[in-house]
Amino acid sequence: MPQSFKPKSVRELLTEMKDVSDLMIDLAYAAVLFESDELADRVHELETRMDKLMYQIRTIAAVVTRNVREARKITGILQVASAAEAISNATGDIADLVRMGIEIHPVARDALRTADEKIAWVEVSEDSVLVGKKFYELKLPSSIGIWTFAIKRGKSWIVLPQKNTEVHVGDALIVKGPPDGVAILCKMAGARREVWAPERRLPSIRKALAKRCVRQARRGCGRWES
Amino acid sequence: MPQSFKPKSVRELLTEMKDVSDLMIDLAYAAVLFESDELADRVHELETRMDKLMYQIRTIAAVVTRNVREARKITGILQVASAAEAISNATGDIADLVRMGIEIHPVARDALRTADEKIAWVEVSEDSVLVGKKFYELKLPSSIGIWTFAIKRGKSWIVLPQKNTEVHVGDALIVKGPPDGVAILCKMAGARREVWAPERRLPSIRKALAKRCVRQARRGCGRWES
Repeated sequence: MPQSFKPKSVRELLTEMKDVSDLMIDLAYAAVLFESDELADRVHELETRMDKLMYQIRTIAAVVTRNVREARKITGILQVASAAEAISNATGDIADLVRMGIEIHPVARDALRTADEKIAWVEVSEDSVLVGKKFYELKLPSSIGIWTFAIKRGKSWIVLPQKNTEVHVGDALIVKGPPDGVAILCKMAGARREVWAPERRLPSIRKALAKRCVRQARRGCGRWES
Repeated sequence: MPQSFKPKSVRELLTEMKDVSDLMIDLAYAAVLFESDELADRVHELETRMDKLMYQIRTIAAVVTRNVREARKITGILQVASAAEAISNATGDIADLVRMGIEIHPVARDALRTADEKIAWVEVSEDSVLVGKKFYELKLPSSIGIWTFAIKRGKSWIVLPQKNTEVHVGDALIVKGPPDGVAILCKMAGARREVWAPERRLPSIRKALAKRCVRQARRGCGRWES
């Protein structure tokens, strides 16, 4: 028997599209920052999800449009949806860098680290006050401005933890927020500071390359910082 | 005399591109939400700024590339930069809706209001604890998770207030953050709740249209909520 068609409302679809595109931006930058194939794969999955949402919203728009006046109004909605999809495609391009194994220059990762809204990787130690707490109890977004958009637990990943997700010892929280919020989270997590270790770990090569770029830049016109 | 060429570093350019694209997303959604031509114009200005940044980063990349190996590394940086530019173009498309005077369907604005990271408009009353304080004193991002990305002061706008920008009586703070953070800000601002008033103010027409959409949707397949 074919499944019955249960359409979401346009509002629900558009809200989901905005939320997904916001999440994808964070995940894509985090994928580059930590050179994580896993995070890049999640971005790719969400890109497919986004395409489906776009298809659904276009279908509903076509169904409910009866005249030119309505069509004009719906054009506005479709344009907002298209923009969210375009943002999602752009983040897909960022994540593809990691999926294709293209080495990321240290300056690109440094640039992402020094942005206003910082992305950080914080590990939860045994004596952390976070352990055993659920996210709805912690209220990190409204208490310290920190959004946890992914957790690395052992070898698996939890993307966009839910309100009742519990923090475990050893969890790596992938967060975004203001630098002083990240510092507070580190204290709460019992971590000295955020972890700055890409999964592929090639620090010596990176360091050498970075130094070389600085040397070259001093001679040339462009300046490359490590 | 021609001005001397003082190039920024690639890291500085890329950091600025990320920050500008993040800001543009918030401004574009806020422009739609509050139907503000002023905010839409700011998005347009930032789009031009973004094009210039992209030009600069491409120039530096071309100057410092000496061999194929370096070119491969720089490709990664350019792809991150291009993605930031693509995001900026998408936000430009959103803002163009407002600039072109296309009426925004209420469901689009509702969708933006109910997203995880809420955008809100909060007015500062005379007896607010915020009055006379500078943003670096308030530390809103790390204390309640609220980022103030624009202020409407009288008829003028301040986009991305600086750390030493002071809050005045009557300021409308355009912010993003978690819903409970927005609620706390409203209390601090001495406002009962966030303001939900588009500049063009056509509530009756919108209400009527929304009701009509709900009626139509009940008959049809798609569901439109007001």
